[in-house]
Amino acid sequence: MDDFVFQNTTKIIFGRGAESKVGLEAKAYSSRALVVYGGGSVKRTGLFDRVAASLKSAGLSFVELGGVAPNPRLSLVREGLALCRKEKLGLVLALGGGSAIDTAKAIAMGAPYAGDVWDFFAGKAEPREALPVGTVLTIPAAGSEASTASVITNEDGMLKRGFNHELLYPKFSILNPELAFSLPRAQAANGVADIMSHLFERYFTNSRPVELTDRLIEAVLRTVISAAPRVMRKNDDYDAWAEIMWSGTVAHNNLLNTGRVGDWGTHDLEHELSAAYDIAHGAGLAAMFPAWMKYAYRHDPARFAQVANRVWGVDDAFMDLERAALAGIERLEAFWQSLGLATRLSGLGIGSDRIAEMADKCSSNGTRQVGNFIKVGKREAAEIYALAL
Amino acid sequence: MDDFVFQNTTKIIFGRGAESKVGLEAKAYSSRALVVYGGGSVKRTGLFDRVAASLKSAGLSFVELGGVAPNPRLSLVREGLALCRKEKLGLVLALGGGSAIDTAKAIAMGAPYAGDVWDFFAGKAEPREALPVGTVLTIPAAGSEASTASVITNEDGMLKRGFNHELLYPKFSILNPELAFSLPRAQAANGVADIMSHLFERYFTNSRPVELTDRLIEAVLRTVISAAPRVMRKNDDYDAWAEIMWSGTVAHNNLLNTGRVGDWGTHDLEHELSAAYDIAHGAGLAAMFPAWMKYAYRHDPARFAQVANRVWGVDDAFMDLERAALAGIERLEAFWQSLGLATRLSGLGIGSDRIAEMADKCSSNGTRQVGNFIKVGKREAAEIYALAL
Repeated sequence: MDDFVFQNTTKIIFGRGAESKVGLEAKAYSSRALVVYGGGSVKRTGLFDRVAASLKSAGLSFVELGGVAPNPRLSLVREGLALCRKEKLGLVLALGGGSAIDTAKAIAMGAPYAGDVWDFFAGKAEPREALPVGTVLTIPAAGSEASTASVITNEDGMLKRGFNHELLYPKFSILNPELAFSLPRAQAANGVADIMSHLFERYFTNSRPVELTDRLIEAVLRTVISAAPRVMRKNDDYDAWAEIMWSGTVAHNNLLNTGRVGDWGTHDLEHELSAAYDIAHGAGLAAMFPAWMKYAYRHDPARFAQVANRVWGVDDAFMDLERAALAGIERLEAFWQSLGLATRLSGLGIGSDRIAEMADKCSSNGTRQVGNFIKVGKREAAEIYALAL
Repeated sequence: MDDFVFQNTTKIIFGRGAESKVGLEAKAYSSRALVVYGGGSVKRTGLFDRVAASLKSAGLSFVELGGVAPNPRLSLVREGLALCRKEKLGLVLALGGGSAIDTAKAIAMGAPYAGDVWDFFAGKAEPREALPVGTVLTIPAAGSEASTASVITNEDGMLKRGFNHELLYPKFSILNPELAFSLPRAQAANGVADIMSHLFERYFTNSRPVELTDRLIEAVLRTVISAAPRVMRKNDDYDAWAEIMWSGTVAHNNLLNTGRVGDWGTHDLEHELSAAYDIAHGAGLAAMFPAWMKYAYRHDPARFAQVANRVWGVDDAFMDLERAALAGIERLEAFWQSLGLATRLSGLGIGSDRIAEMADKCSSNGTRQVGNFIKVGKREAAEIYALAL
């Protein structure tokens, strides 16, 4: 087990109707909030009105910032932080999934910063303060509701970059599984792929031994694998959504990487994919992770055999770890396909024509390697994209 | 899944030599600390000197309060809180295991309170503030290093009572598995029983469905079951101690009871046992839990069969859940015995003579029931004590 420091301060309020508590939670931080949301589904479902009523009854006023898109854009972040400064807003409240939350986090650290907020994502500066962030989660997927991460796309060059900082833990996150009932099936499946990818990124490590966190990750994987088909069959299955929603948070709240270094190369590979094609992050991960696994398994077949055995029930290949490893990858593909996910780029309508460009950007023109379990430079990135075709 | 609120703010600093960071962590809270410890082993091992050096180099001065005993006493808490007031100490730092930490927590909430600190344990008052608490953990067992609990024994009537409050989360806890190397084997085994009991108390619930937390609890149980024999064989096995130490924290930091109500009746039964006989808490739990299980399993044989299957590998009794349940209890007893633990009161030299007295005190003279999975009053308590003989 590697040495580590762990502290996650986010307060989780979980349960039916929990969004009615948002005003009470928010007023501990400010009387004026920026409310960040996406394309308007929060208005159609009535969530926005319920949140607005709760804020008002707690004495808060707020300014709206709608229009967050998947692969959220820097320009909207800039708009939001300007609003915070002009209107002297003291809290950024996200309603939605990872895109709304990541936008809120970027606004929160950009508002008090004198320079350009992209400096943080470009690795040129570290934030010293941030406005408090609260969230009302509607899409179990990104785990941003209790993470230190924000991922933003800079339209100038279509650069999609992530940034991590302890200041970005939301102060509170409200998780009501009922809010996921209205998710389109494809979005629900993408969310499941995103959650499972966060677990796989942590699982594939060179740190050892890491027994407790291995088993905790496997526990979350098995829970999601059990619950996901149930929500695909019945979109208002509260119990199954509750397991998925809490799993999505636990998958990404940093507990499961205590004492180990995860890989994260597939996330970098996928970021170029969704920057190039503007596809959903979860959809891109479903196509890229099996390819990465097929490329990476020889580095440590025993680790792949372990997950095949403990998570997928592959118990016939202890004498042939590589066979077990491949059987586990096959089970993963079959499972994701059963949810309607494409596990190949061709299924997303993507061919080989931009592989060289994506490999170039992912490796910063061949100057950096991504990933930790295995190191992926320009050449390796191109090979993995090709495996995903 | 039940609705819940979860927020655990304790900062964990984990790894070899981590106690050298105590001064840096402590100085964020105060320049004057009370250092609470037990019978002197922290001085023999050199831990006290290393901590003192770290505090001094960070500019802190401190006052010592040694002499914490197992089943820590109220009188020492009173002594400590008087010291905090007199010396204007702003931080309570525990070096040791659950007894030292629970004492530190009680001092921390007692010092700023005008009334008697026992009011909190007697259910007569709620704390509004508490001094910050830091810990350097030497015994993986109680989980107090990241919990809301403090358990103190009032010598007046030998009443052992627990109290829970969010103010009691330590601000920081330093976990260095090397500090467990010097633990006597019996104490190590008691600690394992304590950790596993915290997991069982959470596992046996009437809340449902609770798939994620079931699986997380099972993951921690399996990790401890794998690692415990290794530290019994080789007391300086860092890797195995690291798994046990982090498992002990995760077992009790409240994540594993999100969305579910645990039982905790066995803890109440054991508190009377260790108050009456002054035995170690873990030793008492090892004798009481199998008895409680034999009494309780018929309430929900499927739940007992599930843990028997998933944790103990009992896979031959799906057609007979009660048989599977009993097989799981047998495996637990055999495992604890393999660590040198007594799983019967007779093995602790305890007979039936004080059963009526303990059942009476546990049930507050027959006026209360303990436990949630099953309700245990005076009569049931006496039956469970008898089953443990």
